Amino acid sequence: MSTEKCFAKGSAAPGPVPKGHIRIYSMRLCPFAQRARLVLNAKGIKYHTVNINLSDKPDWFLEKNPLGLVPTLETPAGEVIYESLITCEYLDEVYPEKKLLPAPPFAKAQQKMMVESFSKVMPYLYKIPAGRLKDQDVSGLEAELKEKFAKLNQDLVKKKTKFFGGDTITLVDYMLWPFFERLEVLELQNFLDDTPELKKWTQRMLEDPAVKATMTSLDTFKAFYKSYNDGKPDYDCGL
Amino acid sequence: MSTEKCFAKGSAAPGPVPKGHIRIYSMRLCPFAQRARLVLNAKGIKYHTVNINLSDKPDWFLEKNPLGLVPTLETPAGEVIYESLITCEYLDEVYPEKKLLPAPPFAKAQQKMMVESFSKVMPYLYKIPAGRLKDQDVSGLEAELKEKFAKLNQDLVKKKTKFFGGDTITLVDYMLWPFFERLEVLELQNFLDDTPELKKWTQRMLEDPAVKATMTSLDTFKAFYKSYNDGKPDYDCGL
Repeated sequence: MSTEKCFAKGSAAPGPVPKGHIRIYSMRLCPFAQRARLVLNAKGIKYHTVNINLSDKPDWFLEKNPLGLVPTLETPAGEVIYESLITCEYLDEVYPEKKLLPAPPFAKAQQKMMVESFSKVMPYLYKIPAGRLKDQDVSGLEAELKEKFAKLNQDLVKKKTKFFGGDTITLVDYMLWPFFERLEVLELQNFLDDTPELKKWTQRMLEDPAVKATMTSLDTFKAFYKSYNDGKPDYDCGL
Repeated sequence: MSTEKCFAKGSAAPGPVPKGHIRIYSMRLCPFAQRARLVLNAKGIKYHTVNINLSDKPDWFLEKNPLGLVPTLETPAGEVIYESLITCEYLDEVYPEKKLLPAPPFAKAQQKMMVESFSKVMPYLYKIPAGRLKDQDVSGLEAELKEKFAKLNQDLVKKKTKFFGGDTITLVDYMLWPFFERLEVLELQNFLDDTPELKKWTQRMLEDPAVKATMTSLDTFKAFYKSYNDGKPDYDCGL
């Protein structure tokens, strides 16, 4: 976990990317940036973190990536790569040690289809807590999320594997994980009670060194979400 | 251009995928399916087309792909691949003749970032015509679309290349093309007047054999969009 405070508008730009390293523009609490951090850690890549204040982005960051997204990677040659899945595929191709994507094209396509399909699960993880905060009836959304989790559970049952791409962790697991790490702070943890295989998957993931290296404490998550819900996200909370 | 009428709910399922072929579940007028058809044609892959009635999908199709998306690919081994960019990357990996994606990881990432970024242009191509139909003020949307086209134009100016990935057509060109082919029927053609390099790109694209092989006549497009706007899309129009 990076302990660097974030850079905001008006801050001096960081120096050049250290030799032999790749830089990640990140935000400590962002699940998409965490995808890239998981891959960086899992593959043992030397990296340098620059955290960004996403509410007040530095101009020098917007010059590098006009979309202002995290994660954004920057190589010592000045190459800039963004969009979480694209950054992770890039890292997996450039750093051949411990390949995370399978080589066969169909197996690779399956992982990417699953990540794409999971992007339709994500909105529930925000809509349900937001609805509850406003005392709205979220039972319909909850039923839909249960169905989505049941499908993920069924996938593991059918595959009879420990992880989504086989018996070892592969890219798809890391792409899904950041959202499962947040279930507890989002008070959605009990959705795993009816999906025992999916729950076991989360328990196995928690034992992974890269998962451990990118974990955020529940207290920090709570403080961050509180600040976020109050309209003043504290990107440095817990530091 | 496929001249096969579409399969609707209740229709008998097509036979197995012919040997030595790949099957594409498509819809003749769908820009996303056209992306895969462009790649199939450009690479000279033998393929078998099954057009789907997207308003009334056959059960056997939903069994193959519960998401019911086109394009969906099916191999003779029964492997099913969907999501347009994923299908195209899969085809480019499996069929090594005439590689459409560059090999260097950064160049590959650049193409995918551009496709992702273009997905934010697409909504304008639907919102502006829909707004005009309802006599809404779409001047704000038009100004935004102009800006997006100007950026694409500027990209070509900066690169000094004939196409977006170099002086020959690569995957990114095929991913963008179907939306430019539709500018005329959407009455957005004049947006190219201020972007001369982008206009030249469309003219160069029109000379490409794969582009020619997947073209739809303006009359057919007009008939289709009319039926679509009337709430009864005629997926077989022009046949």
